[in-house]
Amino acid sequence: MIMEETKLKVVGKPVQKIDGAELVTGKAKFTGDMKFPGMLYAYQRRAGVPAGKLTGIDFSDAVKMEGVAAVYTAKDLLGPNLVGILPPFDQPLLAHDDIRYAGESAALVVADTREHAKKAAAAVQLKIDTVEPILTVDEALEPNARKIHEQGNITFSKKLIKGDTAKGFAEADVIVENTYETSFQEHAYIEPEAVCALPSGDGRVTLYASCQSPFHIRGHIANNLNLPASRVKVIQAYTGGSFGGKDDVAVEIGVLAATAALKLGKPVMINHERGESIFGSNLRHASKISYKTGAKKDGTIIAREAKILLDGGAYASESPFVTMKALIHANGPYNVENVSIESTAVYTNKTYAGAFRGFGVPQVTFASESQIEELAEKLGIDSLEIRLKNGLKAGDKTATSQTYSQSVGFLDTVKKIREIRDGLAVSKDERYIYGTGIGSLLQGISNGAEGVDVVGASVQMSQDGSVLVGCGLTELGQGSRTVFAQIAAEVLGCGVDKVTVRQVDTDSVHDSGPTVASRTTTVGGMAVKKAAEAVKQSLVKMASLMFEAEESMVVLKDGFAVLSVDDNARIPLSDVATAAYWTGFPLMNLEFSKAPPADYDHDTHQGDIYIAYNFGTHLMQVRVDTWTGKVDVLRHAAAHDVGQVVNPIGVSGQIEGASLIGFGLSHMEKVEYRDGIIQNPNFADYAVPSIKDRIPTEAITVEDPTPHGPYGAKGIGEPPLAGASAAFANAVSDAVGHRFTKLPVTRGDILEIILKGDA
Amino acid sequence: MIMEETKLKVVGKPVQKIDGAELVTGKAKFTGDMKFPGMLYAYQRRAGVPAGKLTGIDFSDAVKMEGVAAVYTAKDLLGPNLVGILPPFDQPLLAHDDIRYAGESAALVVADTREHAKKAAAAVQLKIDTVEPILTVDEALEPNARKIHEQGNITFSKKLIKGDTAKGFAEADVIVENTYETSFQEHAYIEPEAVCALPSGDGRVTLYASCQSPFHIRGHIANNLNLPASRVKVIQAYTGGSFGGKDDVAVEIGVLAATAALKLGKPVMINHERGESIFGSNLRHASKISYKTGAKKDGTIIAREAKILLDGGAYASESPFVTMKALIHANGPYNVENVSIESTAVYTNKTYAGAFRGFGVPQVTFASESQIEELAEKLGIDSLEIRLKNGLKAGDKTATSQTYSQSVGFLDTVKKIREIRDGLAVSKDERYIYGTGIGSLLQGISNGAEGVDVVGASVQMSQDGSVLVGCGLTELGQGSRTVFAQIAAEVLGCGVDKVTVRQVDTDSVHDSGPTVASRTTTVGGMAVKKAAEAVKQSLVKMASLMFEAEESMVVLKDGFAVLSVDDNARIPLSDVATAAYWTGFPLMNLEFSKAPPADYDHDTHQGDIYIAYNFGTHLMQVRVDTWTGKVDVLRHAAAHDVGQVVNPIGVSGQIEGASLIGFGLSHMEKVEYRDGIIQNPNFADYAVPSIKDRIPTEAITVEDPTPHGPYGAKGIGEPPLAGASAAFANAVSDAVGHRFTKLPVTRGDILEIILKGDA
Repeated sequence: MIMEETKLKVVGKPVQKIDGAELVTGKAKFTGDMKFPGMLYAYQRRAGVPAGKLTGIDFSDAVKMEGVAAVYTAKDLLGPNLVGILPPFDQPLLAHDDIRYAGESAALVVADTREHAKKAAAAVQLKIDTVEPILTVDEALEPNARKIHEQGNITFSKKLIKGDTAKGFAEADVIVENTYETSFQEHAYIEPEAVCALPSGDGRVTLYASCQSPFHIRGHIANNLNLPASRVKVIQAYTGGSFGGKDDVAVEIGVLAATAALKLGKPVMINHERGESIFGSNLRHASKISYKTGAKKDGTIIAREAKILLDGGAYASESPFVTMKALIHANGPYNVENVSIESTAVYTNKTYAGAFRGFGVPQVTFASESQIEELAEKLGIDSLEIRLKNGLKAGDKTATSQTYSQSVGFLDTVKKIREIRDGLAVSKDERYIYGTGIGSLLQGISNGAEGVDVVGASVQMSQDGSVLVGCGLTELGQGSRTVFAQIAAEVLGCGVDKVTVRQVDTDSVHDSGPTVASRTTTVGGMAVKKAAEAVKQSLVKMASLMFEAEESMVVLKDGFAVLSVDDNARIPLSDVATAAYWTGFPLMNLEFSKAPPADYDHDTHQGDIYIAYNFGTHLMQVRVDTWTGKVDVLRHAAAHDVGQVVNPIGVSGQIEGASLIGFGLSHMEKVEYRDGIIQNPNFADYAVPSIKDRIPTEAITVEDPTPHGPYGAKGIGEPPLAGASAAFANAVSDAVGHRFTKLPVTRGDILEIILKGDA
Repeated sequence: MIMEETKLKVVGKPVQKIDGAELVTGKAKFTGDMKFPGMLYAYQRRAGVPAGKLTGIDFSDAVKMEGVAAVYTAKDLLGPNLVGILPPFDQPLLAHDDIRYAGESAALVVADTREHAKKAAAAVQLKIDTVEPILTVDEALEPNARKIHEQGNITFSKKLIKGDTAKGFAEADVIVENTYETSFQEHAYIEPEAVCALPSGDGRVTLYASCQSPFHIRGHIANNLNLPASRVKVIQAYTGGSFGGKDDVAVEIGVLAATAALKLGKPVMINHERGESIFGSNLRHASKISYKTGAKKDGTIIAREAKILLDGGAYASESPFVTMKALIHANGPYNVENVSIESTAVYTNKTYAGAFRGFGVPQVTFASESQIEELAEKLGIDSLEIRLKNGLKAGDKTATSQTYSQSVGFLDTVKKIREIRDGLAVSKDERYIYGTGIGSLLQGISNGAEGVDVVGASVQMSQDGSVLVGCGLTELGQGSRTVFAQIAAEVLGCGVDKVTVRQVDTDSVHDSGPTVASRTTTVGGMAVKKAAEAVKQSLVKMASLMFEAEESMVVLKDGFAVLSVDDNARIPLSDVATAAYWTGFPLMNLEFSKAPPADYDHDTHQGDIYIAYNFGTHLMQVRVDTWTGKVDVLRHAAAHDVGQVVNPIGVSGQIEGASLIGFGLSHMEKVEYRDGIIQNPNFADYAVPSIKDRIPTEAITVEDPTPHGPYGAKGIGEPPLAGASAAFANAVSDAVGHRFTKLPVTRGDILEIILKGDA
């Protein structure tokens, strides 16, 4: 690994995002920009009440309104009218009986313009016998609570048991215990959800979608339109952010648009408005976490117990997986002998919760890292020393008792942060108070035992030496195209400028599952590397024939095939590729990366789950204005073990971006419900960090390579979010001198504590 | 091979064309049907004179006309302004100096409608210093002829030498010698050429094209737009026939449309009118063939010598390959010890000639088969007996001295035809005269030593068991989708209805070269078979785990994985596929078929050239109306050795279709030139067989399998054309009692001979 790294020419070097120019110049065409002859627009008529029985729909007026082509209700759907992540799916596309949240769709109006469709949707009369909505997890879990779904209100519940916590706590010198809460969070991507379905005239349907997981959409369209999956083609259009948010809802509107398109024989667009994007699609789970940590006097943590309740809203969506992820990550990056975690997702009559960058980890990290601070305080030990003492290192056992013999760079991240912390100037003045907080975390890379980790990628070299890469995982703004281009260029010995990475469509690559779990660089990159290596093999074979030399003497570099013994013996790759083509050596390959099989017990949640973890430690220094409650982040250092940096610019960008969302989660963002209705479905009332709220993130990387990633690389998309979020909460608590246990800790919350004199 | 065949469940069974329904119902969307927002239309301003120097272009009026967006001339092109088949390319996209044929483009007008573009194109003033055009091969070859291209007027010339013809002729008892001529022929597909280029907003260009060889277009767009090939995506839209005709011209208009689209940042369509399709794109080469055959008294042919002159028109196009194909096939399906063939393509100031179904073989077959009849007459031996005596069989040496140990079913085709001939009733009456003609042929399958035979195909099974097939060779109406679906279904043990075959695009599959040389079923089918077998492997592995049985005990059939020892132990393929997906077995594979390397001497044209030949013998019985010259084909039997029938409906369709074009070539079709200008560029004046001219073709198949084709199959797309064409000529000569040596033999030609009393 070391040897390979020292020779790296493209991987590890800064590369500007290869699709950056068209994105910032507005040339990139998003789904909503598309127009096709005869295209219609569909708009969803939503319930508007959080709970009830739908007894009738009257669209006699709506269907006569200007421009309206059709109004569809549940009975017009061709298939089972069900979507979701795990079978048996629980979410109807169009309600036909129960109304389970206010954003639930009951009818789809198709018209010549979105405005006409929206107007007519408002004219659709829904007859709903309302019932009292269940709006909190506690209500939902009451013994006699109304069942939101037939099987009850528990969506999913899992328990992880490592060692014996009763024994552990009995041996503890100190115990800290607290309950933590976090709010729902909106993804707030620039581009709301959009799909456009086209009947392609051959019994096939094509869907352009701003989406995260095209194969997932394909499966649901096939299932709900009673079509073979091979007759559905989903093309991921440029996607203006997703963060987990364009998984479920892209399925939902994808199926609806495809249904209308096939019925009407015309292209049908669904392009959500911001409000729909907030109340009509999944949010981050709100949580309530009771946490207890026991330690010896010297700071050795010997037992941890947590009970996690996740508010999953009306439908299961990703709740099963978020529940599991929270379960596995609740202990954080610590080597603790006795761990007991229970994680439960609960149905309520609110917008369903699902995937969101971090995927349950930010919630539990906030709780766990608050506990570490509380413990440090109680023991009078520097919390960084507690982290160093208990932190995972190679050979240790994680909460699931998994052991990694390499790529466990956690302690290095703590040490890097300790250096910074130790160098911080301590300020003080009358009006402002200062605080520093730490947030350490781990985040599993890959689907691992949660799913399957097969990813397909194709690499094609043309006779001119240019390279086309396709992968089954999507570009969502995270820079995966650039990373893939670098990996292909590294293998093929050419410049990144020779590489194009194409849009994903379901026809041209193996079903690679969803683009989630920070696995794109690691698992997707590995597939690209393998596919490029197969092309390289043809080039090396051809060059060896051209040089009349052994294959082992051929090196690809700087756009040439070069003889290892004579750097002047060079043939341009375009010439080699042309010769290879005419000699009949394949110049395109489809390869697969497959994570090693996971040995995991789904009852005890013990065993090998992920191919690797990203580890990190964040430091945040804040200044709080005691007059106004305003918080300024003065310093934010985020150290992560990424295995191997592929693109330093990309890594920094991911750390900055995820941290800012973590900052929003901890400080600004709150979905406000009243009687089951979201009160702030817009960016005037829902505060999301803007460019002005940007925090001064310094990205610090530790490189402890994993054998399962390309050149050792591990993903960095999600991990910083939990670290920044926890560090912020700890910093503000430190500054104010008050342990905040609920996120977000808003300016108002801070001022309230200060004014109460608790600070 | 035999064992495998006896078990075939889908291959060999009649299957309706899988894309037939959308084609006959008008649902299929052709390039000309496409509309994109802001789309513009381009129209080519052509020279209008066959030869001269372009000294100036004045488009000052044209550019001001209604709807005109731009007028482009050669200097606006971004790259070398050259296209063609073989480098160095000789054909400019827009003329800038020499005008070499009347259809030559000198400017491209882009406007909001095709009508506006056409009108403005007519207003573009071309200043051309005309010169005397060279309009015949003989003129072109005169020693002091003006050079149409710098290097002279010989496009390409090749010589094949087997044995010693001088010695052969010296030993011959009889010699027949004659000169034969054939005319230009227009492809006359239903859909004229069309392309639509879209700037895709990411520095890439997408081209939808009615075309034959998308990779060929991609290369030329990249070259002429100075783009890496990886930034160009060519999608083959439904293509309403091609027959070789949508190879060159799709390149030409594809590059022009892409240039305009990139310059204007808008979609640009070029959709040829019928006239442009005739005078502005390649035709079948007219030919003049001097042929000499020497034989022993017993009918043994011992020497053949031919000199082939092909009129290639203004540009090389496919002339090099047509020259070579004519060279190799001129001797026909006969085992002759001494053969000497010279084949030369010549430049003239006429529309360039290029690929056309048959590709040089119909011209030489007409000559060769005329010779066989003349020889038979001279010797007084039944011509079928001469064919049987001299016909190739396994182990014999072809004209290139290639030996096949199997799949040489020629003699069986002759025998099948002899049976029919022997059973024919001999009619006679006053007004009508009757004749019977035979045409035997061979046609090489695969590019072989002419090019490279790597074809890529992908097969993807979804979790629902449906199958998506992609191949780098295109569906042109020949039924390749159906054949590919059958092969995939055969391998995967499912029904054809489970299989979808997708459109070809250059992103998703290996550059598979052009869809030519009757190689689609053979080489493409082999790639599909290999890709399907790779998927099968995953399914068998998974099923063996599910059955807890050895892989060798798993059979895929009827949509199930079945235990070979217990026919009731069945798991639906969808369940196996779902399990395989979640277990991480790849369900999509990209595989390549590669023909064995050809050992061929390009100087003597001796060696192994094709992986196989299709052999055939046709019989045509005609009735000629002596009052009007009208010919009725009473009987047409076409026996072909196809190795293995994949789809009997498809094979019959190909034999019928190719035969009808052969009939057109021999009887009806004639491109009329006057002073270098085509006089009949429309279907009112250019007679092409219509549905009313359909001849009663009976398709007869011989199955002598080749190891190089899937299940032994050999292509049938081109071969029947030459057979039908030769058989017709011989039948009419027989009826009229006059040896016709020029094709077409029209009603007028026949009547002229009859009236002269020569009959």
